[in-house]
Amino acid sequence: MQFPTPISLKQISELINAEIIGNESAEAKGINEIHKVEEGDLVFVDHPKYYNKCLQSAATHIIINTKDIEIPKGKNLLYVENPFEAYLSIVNYFRPFTAATQAINANVQIGENTIIMPNVFIGKDVKIGNNCIIYPNVSLMDYTEIGNNVIIQSGTVIGSDAFYYNTQKSRNVWYKKMLSCGNVRLEDFVEIGAACTIDRGVTATTIIGQGTKIDNMVHIGHDTQVGKNCLFAAQVGIAGAAIIEDGVTLWGQVGVSKTLTIGENAVVMAQSGVPSSLKGNKTYMGFPAEDAGIKRREYVWIRRIPEIWERIMKQA
Amino acid sequence: MQFPTPISLKQISELINAEIIGNESAEAKGINEIHKVEEGDLVFVDHPKYYNKCLQSAATHIIINTKDIEIPKGKNLLYVENPFEAYLSIVNYFRPFTAATQAINANVQIGENTIIMPNVFIGKDVKIGNNCIIYPNVSLMDYTEIGNNVIIQSGTVIGSDAFYYNTQKSRNVWYKKMLSCGNVRLEDFVEIGAACTIDRGVTATTIIGQGTKIDNMVHIGHDTQVGKNCLFAAQVGIAGAAIIEDGVTLWGQVGVSKTLTIGENAVVMAQSGVPSSLKGNKTYMGFPAEDAGIKRREYVWIRRIPEIWERIMKQA
Amino acid sequence: MQFPTPISLKQISELINAEIIGNESAEAKGINEIHKVEEGDLVFVDHPKYYNKCLQSAATHIIINTKDIEIPKGKNLLYVENPFEAYLSIVNYFRPFTAATQAINANVQIGENTIIMPNVFIGKDVKIGNNCIIYPNVSLMDYTEIGNNVIIQSGTVIGSDAFYYNTQKSRNVWYKKMLSCGNVRLEDFVEIGAACTIDRGVTATTIIGQGTKIDNMVHIGHDTQVGKNCLFAAQVGIAGAAIIEDGVTLWGQVGVSKTLTIGENAVVMAQSGVPSSLKGNKTYMGFPAEDAGIKRREYVWIRRIPEIWERIMKQA
Repeated sequence: MQFPTPISLKQISELINAEIIGNESAEAKGINEIHKVEEGDLVFVDHPKYYNKCLQSAATHIIINTKDIEIPKGKNLLYVENPFEAYLSIVNYFRPFTAATQAINANVQIGENTIIMPNVFIGKDVKIGNNCIIYPNVSLMDYTEIGNNVIIQSGTVIGSDAFYYNTQKSRNVWYKKMLSCGNVRLEDFVEIGAACTIDRGVTATTIIGQGTKIDNMVHIGHDTQVGKNCLFAAQVGIAGAAIIEDGVTLWGQVGVSKTLTIGENAVVMAQSGVPSSLKGNKTYMGFPAEDAGIKRREYVWIRRIPEIWERIMKQA
Repeated sequence: MQFPTPISLKQISELINAEIIGNESAEAKGINEIHKVEEGDLVFVDHPKYYNKCLQSAATHIIINTKDIEIPKGKNLLYVENPFEAYLSIVNYFRPFTAATQAINANVQIGENTIIMPNVFIGKDVKIGNNCIIYPNVSLMDYTEIGNNVIIQSGTVIGSDAFYYNTQKSRNVWYKKMLSCGNVRLEDFVEIGAACTIDRGVTATTIIGQGTKIDNMVHIGHDTQVGKNCLFAAQVGIAGAAIIEDGVTLWGQVGVSKTLTIGENAVVMAQSGVPSSLKGNKTYMGFPAEDAGIKRREYVWIRRIPEIWERIMKQA
Repeated sequence: MQFPTPISLKQISELINAEIIGNESAEAKGINEIHKVEEGDLVFVDHPKYYNKCLQSAATHIIINTKDIEIPKGKNLLYVENPFEAYLSIVNYFRPFTAATQAINANVQIGENTIIMPNVFIGKDVKIGNNCIIYPNVSLMDYTEIGNNVIIQSGTVIGSDAFYYNTQKSRNVWYKKMLSCGNVRLEDFVEIGAACTIDRGVTATTIIGQGTKIDNMVHIGHDTQVGKNCLFAAQVGIAGAAIIEDGVTLWGQVGVSKTLTIGENAVVMAQSGVPSSLKGNKTYMGFPAEDAGIKRREYVWIRRIPEIWERIMKQA
């Protein structure tokens, strides 16, 4: 999330009751979670395991619960006891949650020749381009951006919250919701099937690239970036912060893990599971997904085990 | 389902036109299906294969289509020709189906600071606690109970009917719907993603325990009991009457079969299939799900089959 | 799609600006895609790879982008530069898209004792029989036909568009939507769970046969024909133009590929993947789905690979 205008660390420190270690007149451009930080951003970290990752990230200002740490040149710390709560305070200040009270809410822009069918919900600050069709019972949550010539079939939800929690198993309630302040962007000529869910970014933008077509009941996690001209068949699921490059085809019920990359024009056969990155321009199969040719031979080898057994028995 | 007050067998017998074999002034506290029966309950059985299971269950009163059977001490039979139809009559009498006619129906309780967004449907006798957020296009069906600080994302259905049928392949229509009279209970701090479905119990309560967080497109079957602080990723499916103990993590697209138990703090890796009970405090993988370490070695062994073949060929 | 009355090729040729090669007073009864064509139909083909398949199909009139081809006796060609665009023109002429403007639209027929709950959307020309229950937030799209005694749980979408595209990777936008002009028919005593999606046929009818029961989050693709008394558990997905014969059981999360046949009374175990046709009256398991007994022995053999290895090492 970018702030409307850059904010001085002094102002931020007053908002979250932090001690500034560094230049208090420095300015923060926005706040992002660790996978999406850019120069000028605030980031937060509360576990020693991730201190260094955050300090070495692109973020310029780190909200942290230690002072006993070497600060990289040009960076500033904001010391607080509970960085996660500090994050929540900043999000609540800049993007306060507001209860929608009507089917189409404040600051909604709808382009020419765009059709909004009955029972559609459109949250605040949603922008929809020209020549779109939004079918009945669709929910477009706050800040969603939709290009031109986009079609969304019935029952689909765009911009639901990220499934992203702060975990402490010492608490009575282990998982505490990390508020989402990001959004979803569907580029031109995107088509989304019925009963799909595309989560908004935690702090950044979940993107579906131009011309990508998505079948029914597909789930796409927060902050995932899908390229242009991809084709996802029904019941595909993609976890958070994945990168799916241009021209990728995922057949039915494929599952894709988080924070990995699938290279351009890769094809993943139905029901495969993708636990780690895949190179482009190849066809994959099975769990864990590997080269489809190798996998097919593997199936044949498995069927030959009894024959192998028999041969050994004869030789014994 | 418990009756509002205990009902004499005499009254029940008049309702379903049954012959009482036993004490007609005995009282029934409620009616439940075989997985959920308690002392004082009515249960029904229509197939000789299950006669003994029902007679030996906790149920006190058995609606049955035979008289030629030994009755356990302290139990009573209600003889009818068609026990399934008798069950339907009792459910229709005590929990008659009524057609909802408005978005928010009779006897709904909504707590303080709870937000109900547009296009939400709330059935009769639904109770919602304080500080909840119910997003647009959610359906909360009759008798659903929701605690405090619960969040439900758009498009989710809580309390749809159990997928539970009386089967007779000699009929023109093989499957006859077993009417649901149970409900769903979501405890405090539960969060449910978008486009999920949680079925009501057939006769009892489907429970999601305190602090459990559920991602998008998760299906949970009738009468399943999910413990506290569980975490279910997107597109998980759990069949009916399963028990998921506290702190269990199920990653994306995991499938869990019916009437089994997953022990506390178990972790099941993405896309795994769980056909039978799993012990707690371990990590599982694959289909059928087994210890993840063993399963990973199995994948390595499969890749070595060609090498095994080559060695045998050399030895031959 | 059948035309309201047969249309002369001359009229069709004027609509799509085609050159008739054959009998211009011949009449077309309707237009269908290649999987569903019948005698008297128009069909279109734009790729040399499929020219022969179309010419040899049941279709009588072929919209095609070549003249250099032998015409089977009794058939007629309609020559155009872009057969796909010609198809779209015909669909737009006979079944023009209209934006729904209200929850229940023009020419809807609703039978006796049928209950339509709040927030349901019903498109134009939808017919619903007697004694049905349509739960809240269901979407019934244009031309859907529903028999008697049908139940549809909340959030389900019947008649969403086919996931079917004309592909040309030389274009900026690779995939161009093939407009759907077919529909969905649910026969008597069908029950559909919550959050399901059943796509309309591209040009024909997606059919769910009498007495078939479908659990939550099941996806059924365009033009698929499901027989009578089938049982599909939650999260099953069936691709387009498949034939599922009577009495088939598919357990949870099963995936079925397109244009194949599953024979009557077949049972497919949970999470299996069906890439090609299966014979009836057998039980199947795994991916690719095969005889369950064989598959179970295969799992046992896999676990024995280390033992095989050990034996070889001893013999070496």
